[in-house]
Amino acid sequence: MFENQDRTNLDDLGEFGLIDHLTKSIKLTQQSTVKGVGDDAAVLDFTGKKVLVSTDMLLEGIHFDLAYTPLKHLGYKAIQVNLSDIYAMNGTASQVTVSIGMSSKFPLEAIEELYQGIYIACEKYNVDLVGGDTTSSKQGLVISVTSIGYADEADVTYRNTAGEGDLLCVSGDLGGAYVGLQLLEREKLIYLENPKIQPDLEGKDYIVERQLKPEARRDIVELLKSIDVKPTAMIDVSDGLASEILHICKQSDKGCNLYEEKIPLDPMTYETAREFNLDPTVCALSGGEDYELLFTVKQADYDKIKFKMDITIIGHITEPSAGCNLITKTGNVHPLKAQGWNAFKQD
Amino acid sequence: MFENQDRTNLDDLGEFGLIDHLTKSIKLTQQSTVKGVGDDAAVLDFTGKKVLVSTDMLLEGIHFDLAYTPLKHLGYKAIQVNLSDIYAMNGTASQVTVSIGMSSKFPLEAIEELYQGIYIACEKYNVDLVGGDTTSSKQGLVISVTSIGYADEADVTYRNTAGEGDLLCVSGDLGGAYVGLQLLEREKLIYLENPKIQPDLEGKDYIVERQLKPEARRDIVELLKSIDVKPTAMIDVSDGLASEILHICKQSDKGCNLYEEKIPLDPMTYETAREFNLDPTVCALSGGEDYELLFTVKQADYDKIKFKMDITIIGHITEPSAGCNLITKTGNVHPLKAQGWNAFKQD
Repeated sequence: MFENQDRTNLDDLGEFGLIDHLTKSIKLTQQSTVKGVGDDAAVLDFTGKKVLVSTDMLLEGIHFDLAYTPLKHLGYKAIQVNLSDIYAMNGTASQVTVSIGMSSKFPLEAIEELYQGIYIACEKYNVDLVGGDTTSSKQGLVISVTSIGYADEADVTYRNTAGEGDLLCVSGDLGGAYVGLQLLEREKLIYLENPKIQPDLEGKDYIVERQLKPEARRDIVELLKSIDVKPTAMIDVSDGLASEILHICKQSDKGCNLYEEKIPLDPMTYETAREFNLDPTVCALSGGEDYELLFTVKQADYDKIKFKMDITIIGHITEPSAGCNLITKTGNVHPLKAQGWNAFKQD
Repeated sequence: MFENQDRTNLDDLGEFGLIDHLTKSIKLTQQSTVKGVGDDAAVLDFTGKKVLVSTDMLLEGIHFDLAYTPLKHLGYKAIQVNLSDIYAMNGTASQVTVSIGMSSKFPLEAIEELYQGIYIACEKYNVDLVGGDTTSSKQGLVISVTSIGYADEADVTYRNTAGEGDLLCVSGDLGGAYVGLQLLEREKLIYLENPKIQPDLEGKDYIVERQLKPEARRDIVELLKSIDVKPTAMIDVSDGLASEILHICKQSDKGCNLYEEKIPLDPMTYETAREFNLDPTVCALSGGEDYELLFTVKQADYDKIKFKMDITIIGHITEPSAGCNLITKTGNVHPLKAQGWNAFKQD
């Protein structure tokens, strides 16, 4: 359909380049559209409350591998991944729609398991499944989720509003989901070579769960509200810490200093990364899928958050001309780069 | 993963059986959820206006064939299919989110064409594209769209509120999309046998467009408002007239009489169906993809709609014990059956 000379390779553009390219000509016309493409969720104004809507698609072979992903976990994760976007707007998630494309070769029990995970997640996070579509698929399993939530106008937190001097904070710990994935991939290869060998995941529950059954951080949104801290900017960590920090800095037109020694790592993440000859810091920066919240707060809020166990201050926002920098443990300064998890595949 | 004796075949359940099965245990907990699964769109109450949300997934090889579907048309259709659900609630569509999974073998120009069709549809129907996801796919092209709209509470029109004696009405004409598909499939086979033969679609523009580039009937919603007619129940015709009538009757706990001679058919649909040795009435009843609106109105509104060119009265609602009947041109009475378009494949 297209001659070779007309081809632009999608790989060369990269995901964000492609999204930029595709969305740059969007014109918003609805009075009810407060914020369209470009943040974790769309913000719509239907009088009084802001309505938050976000959508994600998970494809077999790209986002998950059924060789080591139980369907119940997959359903659970598909919901978490989407709720995370609503929380990243500082909102309350209230509904989801779920569309599934699945080969008719799957037995009913399989699709039930998938939905079981979906329902467990909905119940736990107090959201209603309000619609969707179920269709047969000639290829792999496809899951598309749209999540809807709400927030008072004053509470909605964007990516582009970080201020100079603000503290850069992250919830939980990072890199675990990526290291967990390495472990699962290794055990899959061993199994394929010799199906009689049982997978050896003993003692690795935490990082395996980080990969297979992440939890969106509703508790962090609630914690911040309870201590009266409104983040100045927020995003969820789906593509890796570096990528998310760069989103906030770019969209806020600011720079930042990120301190390597401050990046929260679980000991199991650290040890297992070492086993795989991976740099644990790189796993946190570029691993992704941790679904933690990255946010900025005013310095005046320092006392309110400094002793919160689940929040770590990892740096601060600077003037844009200073750039985005990683200060290593040895004191070296490197420009922060978003490699994305694909970069690992070349190692 | 599942032993053979535990298998329930998805094919045996059918799409609606599967949806019933999967959604029967849903418990709604949000005060803001007025209506969840079970209608064309979810209805959410965020003070003042009702928010309408609907979602659909289109998969290559299931819902479309790239051999004869231009990508621009496909993008356009993906939006129409979704907006149609919002109009079927008697609402105003205001936003969409679009998720695309596409092989990286596609050149950028291909995905641009797809988005071009999406943008043209959004502009024409005055909706904002407010979010989505773009990902690579290892298999075919996947498109998932969520549409969002709104309506005053008094205007929202469900499927389950048809009343006895109400007139059964449909917009436009039916069966064209299905007959258009037969034509495209035939030309594809001829082409595969001999690529030198050019497709012969001359004079068939209307039915080819009905298949490739349907238009959601926003104009009908606006027309009904302008003549002060509030439908008592409404649904869009995506699976075929018979299936949609049965949805309204079942959910409203009513019967109906449908008159074959009243079913609106375009002459080209009629002639082309005959060329294919298909019964034109069956094409309308079971063909699907027409994206017309099927609705019921009170008899008192008869004078307001009787001369509207684009609305046809095709029957009336009866007491439930009378059943759902098709009165043929020869006066025979048959129980109305939803065969769905798959049934054609056995002919």
